[in-house]
Amino acid sequence: MNERAVALLTSDRYATNLGIRLVEAASDRVTVAMTVTDEMTNFLGGFHGGALFSLADCAFSLASNLAGDRAVAIDTHLVLNAAVEVGEELTAVAEEVSRGRTLGTYRVLVNRADGRVAGHFTGTVYIISNV
Amino acid sequence: MNERAVALLTSDRYATNLGIRLVEAASDRVTVAMTVTDEMTNFLGGFHGGALFSLADCAFSLASNLAGDRAVAIDTHLVLNAAVEVGEELTAVAEEVSRGRTLGTYRVLVNRADGRVAGHFTGTVYIISNV
Amino acid sequence: MNERAVALLTSDRYATNLGIRLVEAASDRVTVAMTVTDEMTNFLGGFHGGALFSLADCAFSLASNLAGDRAVAIDTHLVLNAAVEVGEELTAVAEEVSRGRTLGTYRVLVNRADGRVAGHFTGTVYIISNV
Amino acid sequence: MNERAVALLTSDRYATNLGIRLVEAASDRVTVAMTVTDEMTNFLGGFHGGALFSLADCAFSLASNLAGDRAVAIDTHLVLNAAVEVGEELTAVAEEVSRGRTLGTYRVLVNRADGRVAGHFTGTVYIISNV
Repeated sequence: MNERAVALLTSDRYATNLGIRLVEAASDRVTVAMTVTDEMTNFLGGFHGGALFSLADCAFSLASNLAGDRAVAIDTHLVLNAAVEVGEELTAVAEEVSRGRTLGTYRVLVNRADGRVAGHFTGTVYIISNV
Repeated sequence: MNERAVALLTSDRYATNLGIRLVEAASDRVTVAMTVTDEMTNFLGGFHGGALFSLADCAFSLASNLAGDRAVAIDTHLVLNAAVEVGEELTAVAEEVSRGRTLGTYRVLVNRADGRVAGHFTGTVYIISNV
Repeated sequence: MNERAVALLTSDRYATNLGIRLVEAASDRVTVAMTVTDEMTNFLGGFHGGALFSLADCAFSLASNLAGDRAVAIDTHLVLNAAVEVGEELTAVAEEVSRGRTLGTYRVLVNRADGRVAGHFTGTVYIISNV
Repeated sequence: MNERAVALLTSDRYATNLGIRLVEAASDRVTVAMTVTDEMTNFLGGFHGGALFSLADCAFSLASNLAGDRAVAIDTHLVLNAAVEVGEELTAVAEEVSRGRTLGTYRVLVNRADGRVAGHFTGTVYIISNV
């Protein structure tokens, strides 16, 4: 497993509190997973959009910071495509779309265990320092 | 205070866990607030985008469900405009942009205590039932 | 009328070809207008999303370049809120949400003559040079 | 070539005026192309975001209407990733991300001839009629 990705996620308190764990991290793709709990429901009894976003955002921030740069999110877009139930296992797969000297864009697919897309996320980072 | 808004937020476990509280709820505007804690930091030591999103999303979901319909989020966009520190107090103000029979769009501004915009959020709901 | 805004729009061939004209330009707000023509319809016979976007984008680029900087768009989000017919008059009003040293975000509302919101646009620019 | 895609694009006056042409249309992927002309420049002398959006939007609307439904765009997000020059040849490739009974989401990559991503577009349609 990529050591930098493990170190980054371990030091991310917010993601750790949500139980997000690393599945795979390579230079061109990062996958994280999360089990949906009762704590992640909203007032409609459904899966909270904030928790879905957080999972996608975690894959995005790991992927965009994996090379060693300090990259901060400036823009995110999330389409919520399908309902998610408590107990379900979700994975988020982040891939680089484009990366220049100062800006980088990533696409993240959040998938349910049955293969259906639960969320389609796009995020752009501003790269503060290049290594 | 609007009783339905209070009831909705009270039953939202995810938002409650983040310490989000209701400031104001009227038919055309909902304001919620949150204090940034150590638990909301990411691996860069900054405020986690997932927590910022969750605050904005909470104002959005309350505003879009206030009238009594069951409205579920289908699309969200969040621009992250300024850094936020631990200990800061954030407010999120949601206002209706447009609402038809099946779709409604809301804009949420997340503000720091010094008045600067920390996040600019746009969300669209699909309205499942009309009362 | 703001001379720089007039000069910018006059030299914008794409916007000029669409018949976009300047209504008002102040430091904190730019308004442009366009009449919907047969040339702006899509294969469904409706108003083309590309034309709606172009009108909003024009207000956004004028507002973000008004101060004299060279600012280029890096991210845009457009919600299409209501149908538009041929012959209608649309206005797009751009307002600054946030502007720092390198990034600026603007919100544009595209309104029909009856006051209904036809489109809700958010755009972010990267500021290449500051004057 | 898919006959329905050809018929749709031919009847799209806005796209036709921009010189957009069909490259490929299959059930799971639609590709269109456009040559950048002087008419598509903005006041900075660069490629107009409205023209980039229009190309992506064309691929998106063809892909989402290919099956025979009447699907209208309700949300679009476009990241502008790289500069484009007059004379360049752009292609836009649309692929389905998710499609249910009432909503469908598509991702479109706008590519330069040198393979670099010029734009990353996400669009969601509301499906009015199912065939």
